[in-house]
Amino acid sequence: MARIDLNSDLGESFGAWRLGDDAAMLAVVTSANVACGFHAGDPRALLSTCERAVAAGVVIGAQVGYRDLPGFGRRFIDYAPADLVADVLYQLGALEGLARVAGSRVRYVKPHGALYNAIVHHEGQAAAVVEAVARYDPGLPVLGLPGSAFLRLAEKAGLRTVAEAFVDRGYTPAGTLVPRGEPGALLEDPVEVADRMLRLVERGEIVAVDGTVVEVRADSLCVHGDSPGAVAMAEAVRGALVGAGVEIAPFVTAGDRR
Amino acid sequence: MARIDLNSDLGESFGAWRLGDDAAMLAVVTSANVACGFHAGDPRALLSTCERAVAAGVVIGAQVGYRDLPGFGRRFIDYAPADLVADVLYQLGALEGLARVAGSRVRYVKPHGALYNAIVHHEGQAAAVVEAVARYDPGLPVLGLPGSAFLRLAEKAGLRTVAEAFVDRGYTPAGTLVPRGEPGALLEDPVEVADRMLRLVERGEIVAVDGTVVEVRADSLCVHGDSPGAVAMAEAVRGALVGAGVEIAPFVTAGDRR
Amino acid sequence: MARIDLNSDLGESFGAWRLGDDAAMLAVVTSANVACGFHAGDPRALLSTCERAVAAGVVIGAQVGYRDLPGFGRRFIDYAPADLVADVLYQLGALEGLARVAGSRVRYVKPHGALYNAIVHHEGQAAAVVEAVARYDPGLPVLGLPGSAFLRLAEKAGLRTVAEAFVDRGYTPAGTLVPRGEPGALLEDPVEVADRMLRLVERGEIVAVDGTVVEVRADSLCVHGDSPGAVAMAEAVRGALVGAGVEIAPFVTAGDRR
Amino acid sequence: MARIDLNSDLGESFGAWRLGDDAAMLAVVTSANVACGFHAGDPRALLSTCERAVAAGVVIGAQVGYRDLPGFGRRFIDYAPADLVADVLYQLGALEGLARVAGSRVRYVKPHGALYNAIVHHEGQAAAVVEAVARYDPGLPVLGLPGSAFLRLAEKAGLRTVAEAFVDRGYTPAGTLVPRGEPGALLEDPVEVADRMLRLVERGEIVAVDGTVVEVRADSLCVHGDSPGAVAMAEAVRGALVGAGVEIAPFVTAGDRR
Repeated sequence: MARIDLNSDLGESFGAWRLGDDAAMLAVVTSANVACGFHAGDPRALLSTCERAVAAGVVIGAQVGYRDLPGFGRRFIDYAPADLVADVLYQLGALEGLARVAGSRVRYVKPHGALYNAIVHHEGQAAAVVEAVARYDPGLPVLGLPGSAFLRLAEKAGLRTVAEAFVDRGYTPAGTLVPRGEPGALLEDPVEVADRMLRLVERGEIVAVDGTVVEVRADSLCVHGDSPGAVAMAEAVRGALVGAGVEIAPFVTAGDRR
Repeated sequence: MARIDLNSDLGESFGAWRLGDDAAMLAVVTSANVACGFHAGDPRALLSTCERAVAAGVVIGAQVGYRDLPGFGRRFIDYAPADLVADVLYQLGALEGLARVAGSRVRYVKPHGALYNAIVHHEGQAAAVVEAVARYDPGLPVLGLPGSAFLRLAEKAGLRTVAEAFVDRGYTPAGTLVPRGEPGALLEDPVEVADRMLRLVERGEIVAVDGTVVEVRADSLCVHGDSPGAVAMAEAVRGALVGAGVEIAPFVTAGDRR
Repeated sequence: MARIDLNSDLGESFGAWRLGDDAAMLAVVTSANVACGFHAGDPRALLSTCERAVAAGVVIGAQVGYRDLPGFGRRFIDYAPADLVADVLYQLGALEGLARVAGSRVRYVKPHGALYNAIVHHEGQAAAVVEAVARYDPGLPVLGLPGSAFLRLAEKAGLRTVAEAFVDRGYTPAGTLVPRGEPGALLEDPVEVADRMLRLVERGEIVAVDGTVVEVRADSLCVHGDSPGAVAMAEAVRGALVGAGVEIAPFVTAGDRR
Repeated sequence: MARIDLNSDLGESFGAWRLGDDAAMLAVVTSANVACGFHAGDPRALLSTCERAVAAGVVIGAQVGYRDLPGFGRRFIDYAPADLVADVLYQLGALEGLARVAGSRVRYVKPHGALYNAIVHHEGQAAAVVEAVARYDPGLPVLGLPGSAFLRLAEKAGLRTVAEAFVDRGYTPAGTLVPRGEPGALLEDPVEVADRMLRLVERGEIVAVDGTVVEVRADSLCVHGDSPGAVAMAEAVRGALVGAGVEIAPFVTAGDRR
């Protein structure tokens, strides 16, 4: 039977400011990328998200990012590698403290926003994130883009790597994402998206923006929950997969991190 | 043989801004209250302080504080208890992540600045800090002012409490600190201070500002290192104690937290 | 003909986080208390709010607050007076820069959240805010609670003071606000609220929580826009006042600051 | 008679953290690049620096930077142009408020750190800074690197541009700075540096790292004050220039901004 993980960004509120519908998304996903306070997430909101994830049986991962609340971690910052190592370690520990109190642990790492994008190609920053994870706990899997410098260096360092696909993004014939702003970059029809994901999960292929069929490896599908439409799409994808007999289950297994 | 712990605030630099002489103080103290990033301490500086503490054989404690970098944690903030619990948990975890990577752990907790002062009397905030520590790890000792609401509530919650005295502060006949700004509040003569501390350690008594002798319990002496004069005084106190045959050793023992 | 100003807090978004419906509220109010970045408001959002206020013919005031983004300025902070003076000056200048570029100026000052509440009684902080405004521009009116230390000290310093009433709050027989959490503190029926405000504007009186009628002076009514219900209530109040022939107009006049 | 301005970065302390010797530098320079709070400078320190600059007869300029206290503005951040425009406007206004209260105004703008370096080449960010200054006050001169995109676009926008040279940096035969980390990048001998600057001021030429003589235009010389050695070098340069009869005077003139 086919099997897939669904992941989403959660815990992105900050103080008086709310963002996303964590409650709804915890009923959809199996892995929660919980923010760590540097680009989003105040400690009380993060603790509450961890507690709700545990109650929902959803695995907690650390959504580490640049230290940039005003920019929500979406602006590239040219960190010195040693600063990035330390900032990632700090975030991992901070979220772990909250996750433990909530009855779980940090079970994987997924970089966020501009950091996620940067380490597709930026070797120095990719190496810094890998170094941080490996020093923190070499049993901690990392979630990222297949083909990225990040996953390549992580694998080389002995970390377990988990490849993800994006449910609402168009793909090029080369199997990479159509850049935002270009035609076909964003998909909005829940039915179409659900069909695409079912095909991806069952056959490991996706129809690219030019109609060609490309092979894409994905251990997890990234869904969004930052708008009512996004939640509806995530629910549609989950419904289609479940309806087709696909098992929705976390990628984290007994073999990982304790 | 008499025995005492020496503790000091470390890791209080932030980015381009340096504060204190951590290297000098690590040769003096047995317990390092390492800042946790909310009132002082950037992750890279904190990691470096943890690594140096481990190299020096100094025990690492978490110097948790209010989230107030511009105020250095020295201004009372009227936190909601649930926010304070979460902020303390976040800081504990963050420093623990760095301490583990450096080869150690957070072995005790000492609140900082205005939080330290507030929880002498503020029951709500004292209870919040105690709740955070107890939820994080009930085996973690807390360091504070004898007679404070904080130590009283901590004891009630089953935490190990450690009382401290301040080497450079005058005491009232009631055994409390002479408030800053009043005559006799601050002591500046290293020789006098060393003598006082020796008497405190050996006989559990201190000469108050009015000349009376009061009993003071202290498991640890707090020394400062934020100026060349402060470092010299800390060295004088240690020298006097060692010269008199007092053993300088951490209060953390095998019975505490691993 | 009776005449009143309507004011509301605007510009309270921050980065990726949106708060309040500024567009809707700019169609209701005559005075916009625009956040200044220390408790809410990123520069781009603030500039945009200023531009929209100018386009809507709404007067811009500075909503100065404590430097506390995670707490949204809603937690008392025990500032040193000189720090509070400087923080208020900084915020006034920052918003003024944006307001000038948008084609207007800062025309009044209204403290926010916990600072607003503190300076009802806290003489030291009230004096600091007054000092900041007087040093920045003694022609700048201040908006606050009638009977507060803030308005009393402002008057003494020669500033023009503007008293406000709260449309959705219950009043005690003494003419003060029923504390939040007590019965009758918050009013939710738009029709009742509109009636109360009409009576207040026309006759200077309000029905207290115990049924007695008390005199209340108000040059401006504070309405909220942080939820769809709040916007609806603000619209209802404006509608009732306009329907009764009350002129809705800013309190800032040609005599004030340019 | 030859004439030159001396500028330096001031007001870079933050809260409990002190940086640089502002008092000493105000006796050396004629133009103070005062930080604006986004990468350094708390409001109280900034106000105090402005007051001291006014007392010393030193012109105040706005040292605008990226919003990055932990990185001290020394890390490139990939801002959206509209965010950079707003952040610069906010900083200009904030410092202006403090400068006015101190009895002066912001009289010029000099970008700081990584922003300074970025806009040597980065057209988008250079255009954003120019747009901010032009919208804030087109009479405000900008200080920068000769040949930079920043000065080129500023000139095109009608702003007065002021070129600076660095007293402690080596130059290439092309008249650009030897990159940090390469041999000859940093000069440490005060006597040599003073000689070089005298030649630059009197004859508009500088000896490059390979011994060739290159023409360099400079209306202002940038000196540093962040260490005792830096202060001594700044004093040596000023002494040599004064001794040779060079007039040390601000570049800001009656023709600029009021």
